[in-house]
Amino acid sequence: MTRAMFDDLAEFYAWFAEQHDREAYRTEQIPVEDAAAWRAETGTGNIVHDSGKFFSIQGLHVETDHRDTPAWRQPIIVQDEIGILGLLVKVVDRTVYCLMQAKMEPGNINVVQLSPTVQATRSNYTRVHGGATVPYLDHFVAPRSGRTVFDALQSEQGSWFYQKRNRNIIIEIDGEVPLRDSFCWLSVDLVIELLKVPNLVNMDSRTVLSGLPYALPGPISLRSRFAGPAVHRFQHILSWLCEAKTRYRLYQELIPLAEVPHWHWSDGRLVHGEGRFFSVMAVDVTAASREVTAWSQPMLAPIDRGLVGFLGRSIDGVFHVLAHARTEAGTRDIVEIGPSVACNPANYARGSHSRRPVFLDVLLGDGDVLVDVVHSEEGGRFYHAENRYLVVDVGEDFDLDVPDDYCWLTIEQLSRFVRFGNLVNVYARCLISCMVGLSEPAPRDRSKSFGAR
Amino acid sequence: MTRAMFDDLAEFYAWFAEQHDREAYRTEQIPVEDAAAWRAETGTGNIVHDSGKFFSIQGLHVETDHRDTPAWRQPIIVQDEIGILGLLVKVVDRTVYCLMQAKMEPGNINVVQLSPTVQATRSNYTRVHGGATVPYLDHFVAPRSGRTVFDALQSEQGSWFYQKRNRNIIIEIDGEVPLRDSFCWLSVDLVIELLKVPNLVNMDSRTVLSGLPYALPGPISLRSRFAGPAVHRFQHILSWLCEAKTRYRLYQELIPLAEVPHWHWSDGRLVHGEGRFFSVMAVDVTAASREVTAWSQPMLAPIDRGLVGFLGRSIDGVFHVLAHARTEAGTRDIVEIGPSVACNPANYARGSHSRRPVFLDVLLGDGDVLVDVVHSEEGGRFYHAENRYLVVDVGEDFDLDVPDDYCWLTIEQLSRFVRFGNLVNVYARCLISCMVGLSEPAPRDRSKSFGAR
Repeated sequence: MTRAMFDDLAEFYAWFAEQHDREAYRTEQIPVEDAAAWRAETGTGNIVHDSGKFFSIQGLHVETDHRDTPAWRQPIIVQDEIGILGLLVKVVDRTVYCLMQAKMEPGNINVVQLSPTVQATRSNYTRVHGGATVPYLDHFVAPRSGRTVFDALQSEQGSWFYQKRNRNIIIEIDGEVPLRDSFCWLSVDLVIELLKVPNLVNMDSRTVLSGLPYALPGPISLRSRFAGPAVHRFQHILSWLCEAKTRYRLYQELIPLAEVPHWHWSDGRLVHGEGRFFSVMAVDVTAASREVTAWSQPMLAPIDRGLVGFLGRSIDGVFHVLAHARTEAGTRDIVEIGPSVACNPANYARGSHSRRPVFLDVLLGDGDVLVDVVHSEEGGRFYHAENRYLVVDVGEDFDLDVPDDYCWLTIEQLSRFVRFGNLVNVYARCLISCMVGLSEPAPRDRSKSFGAR
Repeated sequence: MTRAMFDDLAEFYAWFAEQHDREAYRTEQIPVEDAAAWRAETGTGNIVHDSGKFFSIQGLHVETDHRDTPAWRQPIIVQDEIGILGLLVKVVDRTVYCLMQAKMEPGNINVVQLSPTVQATRSNYTRVHGGATVPYLDHFVAPRSGRTVFDALQSEQGSWFYQKRNRNIIIEIDGEVPLRDSFCWLSVDLVIELLKVPNLVNMDSRTVLSGLPYALPGPISLRSRFAGPAVHRFQHILSWLCEAKTRYRLYQELIPLAEVPHWHWSDGRLVHGEGRFFSVMAVDVTAASREVTAWSQPMLAPIDRGLVGFLGRSIDGVFHVLAHARTEAGTRDIVEIGPSVACNPANYARGSHSRRPVFLDVLLGDGDVLVDVVHSEEGGRFYHAENRYLVVDVGEDFDLDVPDDYCWLTIEQLSRFVRFGNLVNVYARCLISCMVGLSEPAPRDRSKSFGAR
């Protein structure tokens, strides 16, 4: 790379459109029972692959004193292996560049989104499916030649995945690497711009990018009021998290999918009795550019668009976000640090079942919007799963005194937890990515917000 | 506290002897089937308490590619609740004092040992047993009045406990607290001296004390060559640990105790067919000073004294220890950071079954001994369980290049992992406690070592 690949956004979009057009793909929704090489296991009804690899959909029995519902059963994805989400970066003339791929995933809105350099399940990279090798994989598998700037095991969506996690790894290289088809080098500034565009930078990219603020403080440090002294000592926050893990209980037991009540099969999909949450469906895919050229697979398709967001405010001139110690069905260790709000707003419109989340109305109120963008969740497991990501400055009149499960953190403090892995949930991490590069308070007028729509 | 309780070690020993004599205790080994309120559960054979609380002894099926044996079954203690190990500290005239208790535990060698201020299972402090309240407990339960200087969930012995952990918490108070019977204020300097004495400072104290170097760097900072720049960046070590967690697999499944092969009942004890590892036995206890005055309980009694130790050496003038990414039967998350060596030397004397641990001979070789002391493990669960704790400086000729599972860390780096919880195993933490206050390289002559025997 002797010069930047793209001088501006327009050049990137031209390249991206080309990648999109080159993809010979077809994604068709099919009944789960028609998904080739997948079957409902005799006895349990669990949906499994003939190889016993990849993932399965099983039932989960949950008991907890940290949700409105004390116990429930639900379908959940079980993938008991650690995949790699790897990003190659390079510093040229003091600019950080990321090697990203225009990658098709069957569940993606817009079909092609920007993925990190490598996005591989263990099945992928140990070649269970017998397909092509994963490009650039050798940069992420020991012994590595580059400099490891970030490396942590991170959880994924706890409502949909049972204790799933991936290795998020950022490697800085010095030398040249051959540029393969569908890959491009993007400056961090350009990535920051693209994170404002709906459904473009995929979830795998966003979670890896949340490692950047700590990894590379120089070129992309948090500026102005986003850096500075915190209201709480770091020890206070460690103790807040420890307290939450001690206070609450989360009992999880995998059960046969056939033993999950209130869910039933209808037109080849497993759906909730009241049409809530998500359905288990399947797709049939043909795509010339993937490691294998055709496959079927089950997926989870959420019913509605979710909403995740941080409330934030300045405290003594430094911006803090309000974190929530959150328990989800598949959370590995009782609670993780999550955003102030994470919910499906449609659930509360319907009224009867659920208590309205504490800070939902404040998030949707008249604060200054710093981030407002719709992103997709992992298109390899979730079908058209969108969340609206919001960061709203609610102003210095907002009460600093918050319920026990909540705590004010600076972005730098949040990043320290990200660095250790398994402590910050995927939504909070994605919000951090969206905040990288924020430099000034947003204007009062919401229509002029940073969030692109 | 207007002045130190003890001017010197002699005064402490006089007080301690008094406490010992005041204990009206009796501990008698009994057949497990005679332990009142405990029974072998019908069907599973698991040893359970009639209340369903406290703990149980079950079977564990383990599969892993990170031990010499790829799969095995064993008895294991299951205690699915987080207890509190709490230490009150106070700074007077720039000296740190710890509030400790001369406490009887049925498995203790010497019966009475020094415990932290509070050592309470959740059953204790929610008063399942209907006994007296736990002294000083309110200082550790939210809302707390003191300053939290350390607070982390920490694992315990992975070979004997299934994913067990306790909350290790250090609270600094300013005001006075009433001094209850059997409690004393000890200066950190005195605690450091007592850590050199065999079977005196109990395991619960040692694990909490491992939080001190980070919590209170001022008064007890690591001096001279124990502080300073590290050979590896902290990111390198994070990545080393992540790599080990990704490389290895640990599958654990609780099974009925009755389904553990190679173990059989003999004279009221559950023993291994070749007399190895440990036995499950029971004790009957009377002790006036405990929350309840008489009880029976099952315990694990190890066959032999274990050996745990760090090899260390100076690297560019700064002392580093050699950490091992270690997997044990009950480890929560595949590996934890452990000492260079942790084994039962008797296993290797017998020869046939086990490969001799990589660094065992070096540890027992002619390096400079910095720590050499025998301590007891938790006397509430383990009967006369002793380990020899060693830290040996193997000198600058020792190869820096070590196998993948090993890594050189400074004590300060190790302490950063301790602070986050669940990353450093109990043996490594206890060794850190024993190293607090080390100030000078040990003399060459082993007989003049720091270790008291």
